[in-house]
Amino acid sequence: MANTTIKYISKPVLRRPILIEGLPGIGNVGKITADFLASSLKAEKFASIYSEHFPPQVMLDDECVVHMACNDLYFAQNVGKNKVDVVFLLGEYQGTTANGQYVLCKDLMDEVFLRMDVSVIYTLGGYGTGLMADKPRTFGAVTKSSMKTFLEENGVFFSPGEPGAGILGASGLLLGMGDINDIDAACLMGETSGYFVDHKSAIALLTVLESILGLDLDKSDLELKSHQIDELTAKVKEYEVNQKKENLGYIG
Amino acid sequence: MANTTIKYISKPVLRRPILIEGLPGIGNVGKITADFLASSLKAEKFASIYSEHFPPQVMLDDECVVHMACNDLYFAQNVGKNKVDVVFLLGEYQGTTANGQYVLCKDLMDEVFLRMDVSVIYTLGGYGTGLMADKPRTFGAVTKSSMKTFLEENGVFFSPGEPGAGILGASGLLLGMGDINDIDAACLMGETSGYFVDHKSAIALLTVLESILGLDLDKSDLELKSHQIDELTAKVKEYEVNQKKENLGYIG
Amino acid sequence: MANTTIKYISKPVLRRPILIEGLPGIGNVGKITADFLASSLKAEKFASIYSEHFPPQVMLDDECVVHMACNDLYFAQNVGKNKVDVVFLLGEYQGTTANGQYVLCKDLMDEVFLRMDVSVIYTLGGYGTGLMADKPRTFGAVTKSSMKTFLEENGVFFSPGEPGAGILGASGLLLGMGDINDIDAACLMGETSGYFVDHKSAIALLTVLESILGLDLDKSDLELKSHQIDELTAKVKEYEVNQKKENLGYIG
Amino acid sequence: MANTTIKYISKPVLRRPILIEGLPGIGNVGKITADFLASSLKAEKFASIYSEHFPPQVMLDDECVVHMACNDLYFAQNVGKNKVDVVFLLGEYQGTTANGQYVLCKDLMDEVFLRMDVSVIYTLGGYGTGLMADKPRTFGAVTKSSMKTFLEENGVFFSPGEPGAGILGASGLLLGMGDINDIDAACLMGETSGYFVDHKSAIALLTVLESILGLDLDKSDLELKSHQIDELTAKVKEYEVNQKKENLGYIG
Repeated sequence: MANTTIKYISKPVLRRPILIEGLPGIGNVGKITADFLASSLKAEKFASIYSEHFPPQVMLDDECVVHMACNDLYFAQNVGKNKVDVVFLLGEYQGTTANGQYVLCKDLMDEVFLRMDVSVIYTLGGYGTGLMADKPRTFGAVTKSSMKTFLEENGVFFSPGEPGAGILGASGLLLGMGDINDIDAACLMGETSGYFVDHKSAIALLTVLESILGLDLDKSDLELKSHQIDELTAKVKEYEVNQKKENLGYIG
Repeated sequence: MANTTIKYISKPVLRRPILIEGLPGIGNVGKITADFLASSLKAEKFASIYSEHFPPQVMLDDECVVHMACNDLYFAQNVGKNKVDVVFLLGEYQGTTANGQYVLCKDLMDEVFLRMDVSVIYTLGGYGTGLMADKPRTFGAVTKSSMKTFLEENGVFFSPGEPGAGILGASGLLLGMGDINDIDAACLMGETSGYFVDHKSAIALLTVLESILGLDLDKSDLELKSHQIDELTAKVKEYEVNQKKENLGYIG
Repeated sequence: MANTTIKYISKPVLRRPILIEGLPGIGNVGKITADFLASSLKAEKFASIYSEHFPPQVMLDDECVVHMACNDLYFAQNVGKNKVDVVFLLGEYQGTTANGQYVLCKDLMDEVFLRMDVSVIYTLGGYGTGLMADKPRTFGAVTKSSMKTFLEENGVFFSPGEPGAGILGASGLLLGMGDINDIDAACLMGETSGYFVDHKSAIALLTVLESILGLDLDKSDLELKSHQIDELTAKVKEYEVNQKKENLGYIG
Repeated sequence: MANTTIKYISKPVLRRPILIEGLPGIGNVGKITADFLASSLKAEKFASIYSEHFPPQVMLDDECVVHMACNDLYFAQNVGKNKVDVVFLLGEYQGTTANGQYVLCKDLMDEVFLRMDVSVIYTLGGYGTGLMADKPRTFGAVTKSSMKTFLEENGVFFSPGEPGAGILGASGLLLGMGDINDIDAACLMGETSGYFVDHKSAIALLTVLESILGLDLDKSDLELKSHQIDELTAKVKEYEVNQKKENLGYIG
């Protein structure tokens, strides 16, 4: 913990909360989903995490007020059908080095999540396929195979051994550290090309989370962004097809 | 603190001092300004900081006496109209790695600045625009928007969200760590092309600090250097214009 | 030990066990040999080692169950003629950095092997020659020259000063750290081209270990794989010879 | 000290010993000189230093006995005219990273040299000029200018501000850390081209040390090697001159 600083704004008392992680990653699917869910549930920030493993800098907002590179912890209570408590790990940064990512996750596990008696961990991410999916699926990875039936009932697909490259960063490490500490943990990954920020994949992932938590959220903001990107990619495709035709005409 | 060594020469008793940081950076504006101000106020060195995060070397002076890479702390008492105490963080080096910069600032904050009960932090730097400014401005970034009115009254400009790349190194980190520890902090940045050591920008920044501290310093040394650089750049410009004319004549 | 986590499944009580290390390396000779020996002896996993020095990721198996990058400890009791206890250090990873490899070995030595009162260490590896050997030998390196006679009697060759580049990673470091802690240690290296995973070299190395431990194992699985590779390389050679003839024909 | 291990063979009781450092560096001048001096004085090894900052490997000797990367400490008593005690820091390695070099020197200073009450530090090195010197001089750098007269009387030259690049690695850091701990320290640098291992420069540096310590050593071994290199370089020069003549003849 030498150079990880956790600054608490409040210390909420929660009943075996679910942890949901959504830090930057492939297609930013995990981050968009977690940010949207936390915002929809009016989750409240209760701590910020500063570390030597984030970039050594501050960013300015429109008021010229500085913000140091950090991750943030939010909580929401009595969420969904089962009135569960939820903790969110959100932010603009992951550790900048391999061992920095490990140290950050370990410090958070030891100092925060174990003390809060987290009951289950969902890490959110993207599963980059390099292909555009019309109906992106949500893939899963678990620390115990007994978790699979429940997740499948809520719309999660399991594809043996995939993603073949494993799961990198906080989304993978929090699973491994959950397992070490006997906390059930799953990574939920929205199928994405991985080429751009993918709101459509985030909607699919969010639908799975709504099912798991027993929620029915207004996703119109995400849907609008998703449609705009669909239109843009359709135009790009149309343009490319026309270009090809023109080129063929020119050659012919 | 494992490998940060603070060697005290004296332990001055100060009343809630202002901290002014001026380490190397863009156009060296912050360093020139802080060095000049400390020298003008006859500030006294009271500690040196050695670290594994500085280059592993010693430099020789004209007496062949070696000096290990370090940062230094100076103090001045009863400064300006309001008779405030000032601590300076000066030196030729910043940490050579991203996490080294963080660790150095954190160690100084925890071991020195918090113990000294620093009341406010001014970090000095340059705001690199890539353009020569006839009348360089001083830009500001703050930890609390309530600090802006006072700074604007003393000649600081605030440009929403700028610098867009944020503030790197000690000048940024000390702001973030000030904020974590509830110390008001501002970065004051002299507008500079960033292409050379910029004494003109330092004069502008110094004028802001004189106003803040209620000082009237003899800046003739800085002004001489600034004029010399102005003349040099004027000659370079003149030469370029003549070259262009000749080239046009040649073409014509 | 800050960021090395040893998670025990059980704490077997062993009588001055022999430690056998077989982590990934040249031709994977050490890893194949140690994995096969541990499996043949039905060794039981008793601990997993997690570290910031392994890649920050989890891999998925065919059940989509995640496994964090780690090393594992196994034990077997009453092995061979002399009924010795054996501890195995196995895994898919070595530390990803130079100092990470050192720290991992030191933590294991201090926290596990010294506490278990390890009597002797055999680290297993490959000795890359760049040449295909029909009958690969097993080379040795020791912490005390008095160990050589026993090993030579069991089929180990000693070639003065070789390998000239020394022994890298866990296979080398555990020898050095054994020596520091007055534990006899030897590295046994199967001669290998180093160009592919070398089961033939592993069989040779295994034969030496059988002799040392007084074992007679069923090596048919390894022999099958070795023959398959022999056939494959024979075909590649034949093809190359034919190509050469054709080329000469073409020139002639 | 987490990952620096000092293994003592004996704990000699010395009276305010002089420390002489000679680790690898420019032209290996410092290392040759220190190794030769320690050997001539029949200095006795009393400790080895192991560290995560040395390469993670062992080397083999002609007996196939492994040696882990380390530095060694030797001592000699009642040396020279003044019967002083001397400690030597010798070895084949320096730390492989910038902060590793710092940490190693700091650990040695804190754990060994301060406890032994070292009275003065001489670090030995080469001063690379890029030129062959017929009569190489020995240059000096000191922590206090008051040390210069004594060193000049013993044949050391002081050239203001040189070497301009400062002094890197252990030879520099031990000076800086000596200074921090109020131990007089000097770096003595044999003038060398820096292009090869320079025994001639080592003889010059050794002559200075003989004068300082009041010694008269048999340097014939070093002189033989120095002559051999002189002859070799003379032949290379002759060859180059002849080549040049031939080339001119060819052109003419």
